[in-house]
Parts: sequence; structure tokens; C-alpha cells
Amino acid sequence: MEIIFKPIGFIHAQVKNVPRHWTLSDEEGMLVLNEEFIPGIKDITRGQHIVVIFHFHKSRDFSDYFLVQKPPHKKERCGVFSTCSPIRPNAIGMSVLEVLKIDRNIIYFRGLDMIDGTPVLDIKPLVGTRVDRNST
Amino acid sequence: MEIIFKPIGFIHAQVKNVPRHWTLSDEEGMLVLNEEFIPGIKDITRGQHIVVIFHFHKSRDFSDYFLVQKPPHKKERCGVFSTCSPIRPNAIGMSVLEVLKIDRNIIYFRGLDMIDGTPVLDIKPLVGTRVDRNST
Repeated sequence: MEIIFKPIGFIHAQVKNVPRHWTLSDEEGMLVLNEEFIPGIKDITRGQHIVVIFHFHKSRDFSDYFLVQKPPHKKERCGVFSTCSPIRPNAIGMSVLEVLKIDRNIIYFRGLDMIDGTPVLDIKPLVGTRVDRNST
Repeated sequence: MEIIFKPIGFIHAQVKNVPRHWTLSDEEGMLVLNEEFIPGIKDITRGQHIVVIFHFHKSRDFSDYFLVQKPPHKKERCGVFSTCSPIRPNAIGMSVLEVLKIDRNIIYFRGLDMIDGTPVLDIKPLVGTRVDRNST
């Protein structure tokens, strides 16, 4: 059973050392949405946080070896589903980004933790949780 | 450009009226993980919240008509990326679920808002946000 998605847009960013997680990032980037979807972002506003679901498109293929991994900031090896590693059975990433500005099909944001060219799959409102960078 | 994912497991639930959002749900369900991934959930513990990414597999196809939609609980029509509607360009859902128990490859949880048979794509730890059911 295969599930097929297509990018709704792409991340553009000129940042040399991309932070490993949005909670650690003050870097800025752009989400350039395919123009056909412009009406879908009409209610996204400056200052808001959005959830961005994306594809870790440069991540290496997953294998059993990566079921348990040592995150770079931890001492112990963890089950992959307790980590934010890009090497996972489905290479799906999720970040919570702060909207700085919107210009037509471009969402300018802070919190960049994805590389230039990352395909974006979905944007969701932050509902039911709120940002707390110290939470784990 | 197509991105292909495969389910890592499926949701099982015997609930007649599935709540429309996990923030409104005290219903319980099971996430039955494919057995090959069991080592990947070894650090998920009872009482914890997990982020579950899934496929709205029964959702109708997206078209331009759905770029702006009226959520059932709101008066106004919203851009799709400000809603949790299952009818979206990529039919990806995301819920934050409370882990009740783990038995081998089965995660018992509270917060069900997906239908029986829903394909699960990923499980992530809740990092950087915390549950606040009143937040919007």
C-alpha cells in the first residue's frame, strides 16, 4: 500500500548551518507556496505560529539499523519514534514556525530547521498545543 | 514530483461517533504498529503525549473548491491551511494522543479523532510545544 503526496511548495533559505530543530533556531526562511494554493493561506497572519509538514528529501534511506539511534544531543540511543531524526520509516518532518510576513505566495518565517529546497507537504494551524521551547 | 510513503501501522477503534478533533476527544483507540518497527517505540512511555501523523484515507479528492472551507464549528469560511479539514491538498492528519499502555506492537491511547483503519505514517515526540486544549 503506497500513499502518494505532491509538494504544495518549497522552503527557500540561505543559511549555512541550519539548526537541527526549530526550538533552537532563530534563523529565517521562506515558504514559497505553489501559486494555485494562494487562497488557502488567506487567514494566516503575522505573528502566528504554523505547523509545517515537510519531506526530508535528502535523508538517506531507512533500514532496520536506524530503528534505534543516538540523537546528537543525547547520551543514550533512542527508539526512532522518540526522536526527531530525519532518518525514519517515512521521511516526514514537522516544524512549528513563526510567521513574520506574507507576500502573495511567500510566507516569511522564523524557526528554520530545514534545508534549502525542502518540499512542503502541508500547513496546519497550531491547535491544542502551544509553543513551549523547554518542553520535551 | 511525487513523494511516496507506506503505512507504519493502522488505527483500530470501535467508536461510533468519532470526535472531529483530538482536543475534543476522550475516546480511546489502538495504534497497531507493523511488527518490524517494534524497536522504534521502545522509549514511548505511559502517560506521555505523542504526535501521530496519518493519512485521511477516506477523504474525498481535493479540488480548488476546497481552498476555502467553512469549518463545522465556525461561522466564517477559512483558508484550508488554517483549518484541520481532512479535505486538503495532501490528505495528511496530525493528532496529539495520550499514551495509556503499550503492549508489544500496540499503543493504546486516548484522544481518538481518526476512523477505524486509518493508515499511520509517523510517530513523533511532542517537543517544543505542550498540550493546551484551549489554545487556538
